[in-house]
Amino acid sequence: MSRSTTRRTVVSIDVSSSPGIRSRQDHLAAEEPLEIRVRKKPLAVTMRTPGHDIDLAMGFLLSEGVIGVASDVTTAQLCAGTDTPNTYNVVDVVLDPNVPPPVTDPTRNFYTTSSCGVCGKASIDAVRTRSRFDVSTDPLEIPARTLAAMPARLRAAQRAFDRTGGLHAAGLFTADGDLLVLREDVGRHNAVDKVLGWALREGRLPLAGHVLLVSGRASFELTQKAWMAGLPMLAAVSAPSTLAVELAEESGMTLVGFLREPKMNIYAGAHRVTV
Amino acid sequence: MSRSTTRRTVVSIDVSSSPGIRSRQDHLAAEEPLEIRVRKKPLAVTMRTPGHDIDLAMGFLLSEGVIGVASDVTTAQLCAGTDTPNTYNVVDVVLDPNVPPPVTDPTRNFYTTSSCGVCGKASIDAVRTRSRFDVSTDPLEIPARTLAAMPARLRAAQRAFDRTGGLHAAGLFTADGDLLVLREDVGRHNAVDKVLGWALREGRLPLAGHVLLVSGRASFELTQKAWMAGLPMLAAVSAPSTLAVELAEESGMTLVGFLREPKMNIYAGAHRVTV
Repeated sequence: MSRSTTRRTVVSIDVSSSPGIRSRQDHLAAEEPLEIRVRKKPLAVTMRTPGHDIDLAMGFLLSEGVIGVASDVTTAQLCAGTDTPNTYNVVDVVLDPNVPPPVTDPTRNFYTTSSCGVCGKASIDAVRTRSRFDVSTDPLEIPARTLAAMPARLRAAQRAFDRTGGLHAAGLFTADGDLLVLREDVGRHNAVDKVLGWALREGRLPLAGHVLLVSGRASFELTQKAWMAGLPMLAAVSAPSTLAVELAEESGMTLVGFLREPKMNIYAGAHRVTV
Repeated sequence: MSRSTTRRTVVSIDVSSSPGIRSRQDHLAAEEPLEIRVRKKPLAVTMRTPGHDIDLAMGFLLSEGVIGVASDVTTAQLCAGTDTPNTYNVVDVVLDPNVPPPVTDPTRNFYTTSSCGVCGKASIDAVRTRSRFDVSTDPLEIPARTLAAMPARLRAAQRAFDRTGGLHAAGLFTADGDLLVLREDVGRHNAVDKVLGWALREGRLPLAGHVLLVSGRASFELTQKAWMAGLPMLAAVSAPSTLAVELAEESGMTLVGFLREPKMNIYAGAHRVTV
């Protein structure tokens, strides 16, 4: 049995029909906490859909600037801490001895400090400091028609969404519009981390010449993750936020929003989209 | 000028028409970091849409079990720390001397501990320990037709969404279907915190006999927030997760999902919905 979805009995009501009420079986998107530990020290807890948890931890550590290549990690193990039965809700990562361990602070926020005022500019500066990759010179060019066809490909590959209607998706595409990998999760940042962790394990970083497509909105956090993986283009089916657009501009990334065939909006880096 | 939305120039492409490309002005949903401090000590940073920031901080502290009534807070001030110009991205809260300050841990997770394995059950137990209110005996009963009409009322009141298409909404309704307050934010948890903070300031807690409606999905986190405010019913336009349903069952809350007139699914506490 897959742990990514669960069957439950629900009461369905339709106020327009008679009889308007019935019980039936429905599939729900699974949500459980995952604790990410570095050498047994708790770093973060995220509410996620079980599955590809090692990749999720890898993608998270990449996004936070802790690791940059697969060899930065010596071992990563899915375990249950000291608990029985094993819930498989803990990933323990051992870093290469040459990799500095993550710096934790009480606010669990890695890109601002408590000594400065908090503003979007400070957040962007901090991401710039942390990113290993310059995406601004990426020569990627992609026809608008190829972009427009991507959401249908993503949607067709979303098996868990079909059952539950409750999962975000992130897909990694080539410049030719081929879908390399798709991940689904109740949290959109988790879906992206799972994709990035996969790419890291496969030795594909930086993801130059690729496009990351997300099923929902484009936030600052998702744009940051894309930059940390060296992606020159982030596309979203829904709206971007102001800070996502500002970060894309600062990094030289292309940001596409409201990508719904046959239309799309380009919010930054329009030179990479050809018509 | 409202800071909740921003105008920007975007490149719009339509691959089905000729000429397929044009530049135009578009409204974006604003996203900026907000740091929540308790007596100048940083507690959390959330990426939010500016506006109702004091309420957001209040709702966050309520959700985390730090405060329960308005008098638990002596002052709450929107400020900019030591920075100029003032970014208004910091809220500093001074608690009543009788209120224990929040306990921070490196993982910034308040409902699991690093000594136990992490599982959904542990999360639910921790919320139960923290909640001040018993919602299981709330006698609320609400006709399915009244529920079915709520999303249209929420949508009609969403002014920022109309401009940007990029904001989550949370609305507090009476049992008669009247909308008391609506808040919008790029983060759905922020929209809920802003509603709960408003209710706390207005002296309306616990929110017995009320319904909280959210524009997106129902996660564990949102269900937890509803319980912490004493709400007997959470309704969502989209899907719930497994852990949201389990928490609703454990707390005796009613959880409605896929609320789209004329239909809805009841995942827990169906006795409160009359047909």
